[in-house]
Amino acid sequence: MMSGRLLGLGVGPGDPELITLKALRLLQAAPVVGYFVAKAKHNAGQGGNAFGIIEQHLRAEQQRLPLVYPVTTEKLAPPLDYETLISDFYDTAAAQVAAHLDAGRDVAVICEGDPFFYGSYMYLHDRLATRYPCEVVPGVCSMLGSAAVLGVPLVYRNQSLSVLSGVLPEDELKRRLADADAAVVMKLGRNFDKVRRVLRELGRDGGAHYVERATMREQRIVALDEVDPMASPYFSMIVIPGARWQG
Amino acid sequence: MMSGRLLGLGVGPGDPELITLKALRLLQAAPVVGYFVAKAKHNAGQGGNAFGIIEQHLRAEQQRLPLVYPVTTEKLAPPLDYETLISDFYDTAAAQVAAHLDAGRDVAVICEGDPFFYGSYMYLHDRLATRYPCEVVPGVCSMLGSAAVLGVPLVYRNQSLSVLSGVLPEDELKRRLADADAAVVMKLGRNFDKVRRVLRELGRDGGAHYVERATMREQRIVALDEVDPMASPYFSMIVIPGARWQG
Repeated sequence: MMSGRLLGLGVGPGDPELITLKALRLLQAAPVVGYFVAKAKHNAGQGGNAFGIIEQHLRAEQQRLPLVYPVTTEKLAPPLDYETLISDFYDTAAAQVAAHLDAGRDVAVICEGDPFFYGSYMYLHDRLATRYPCEVVPGVCSMLGSAAVLGVPLVYRNQSLSVLSGVLPEDELKRRLADADAAVVMKLGRNFDKVRRVLRELGRDGGAHYVERATMREQRIVALDEVDPMASPYFSMIVIPGARWQG
Repeated sequence: MMSGRLLGLGVGPGDPELITLKALRLLQAAPVVGYFVAKAKHNAGQGGNAFGIIEQHLRAEQQRLPLVYPVTTEKLAPPLDYETLISDFYDTAAAQVAAHLDAGRDVAVICEGDPFFYGSYMYLHDRLATRYPCEVVPGVCSMLGSAAVLGVPLVYRNQSLSVLSGVLPEDELKRRLADADAAVVMKLGRNFDKVRRVLRELGRDGGAHYVERATMREQRIVALDEVDPMASPYFSMIVIPGARWQG
């Protein structure tokens, strides 16, 4: 029997209309639809962010394959550690997907944004793409969704763009931002205050834009100075466009 | 009379199926479709890359608005210089678009990839967005289209991604690549040989992937060592993925 195909489908940053024709076509043709979801959401009968984007397009006979994260924000007691736990989880998730592929069924794994841009799909891909036929459909990433709703051209001509994680240590964040023509800082959440402080120290806060849940229904654009650092969600972003080129 | 809306529509990296539902809907509803095109192509009756992606979706009654670049690769005789010439061109293009907006007609300007990611649309946006209602629809950028067809996850967890132009001076390119966790080098063309040399000097050529015209019909994936530096097109890219995280 032929094995099924692994499909990594980018479904865009949140607005359900920002899925591509190709991702939608492959999604609707797939007998199995896999998605990552937090345990709390799954237990509440929900399907996660990517699933919410595409749920309207699914037919009843398409099998749902939730890949449920085991990790909460609780501190783990030794000898458990996050790295081992999450690695074991991806092994298990890959095995769940592989069981369908072995049975000849295509599995479409849906990915918020783009599959290869900080996506959980990458850990499935690394485990399965050498063993099964595979196709990855790129998507609109949250970074470009954010620039679009903010209305700020991101990067001009020969400028360099630095995509940074808010998790970086303060000194490294500062060094990289100081060297950036244009920059995007993702993964804010609890890191927001540190990132804003660094931008102020560098005198770049004036040109920085902040958005939460760009292109989603709950989208919120707030002036950087007015963001409550205790309430900044993980799905928020700071965009620092390159200097305008008159062109 | 109400003025028309300026629409900046990302149409994706080349595969016509990589347009979003939203860009397609707004495109098909627009009375005027603007597109940038090189003079030689225009004179040959062609419409440019972005136009080729979406032409199949247009109806006869939608007005085409070509914005024809004046610049060739010829060296300009003083007092002409590229900066002035291109700036004047964007002024003229903005005026052409504005004439339709003033007459109450929406103008959809189509953009290969994403409108705010190194796109010519940015220069229209900077000239018109403060004067007219405006909406930008993000698109799948060529960088993510390239990673997808190469099958290489681009950037993991808290890695930084550096998006660089091949036009950069060799020492700056080297410094920025040495500091990058993951990197993408765009705008290769005549800069290819310089970029490959820098990657070799840094010992990063082994992990670098090369693709021409990703997701297009003419797509070509070649080992970095086998690229003919004299024949590398402008629409080629080098992708250096971040170190795999076991996850």
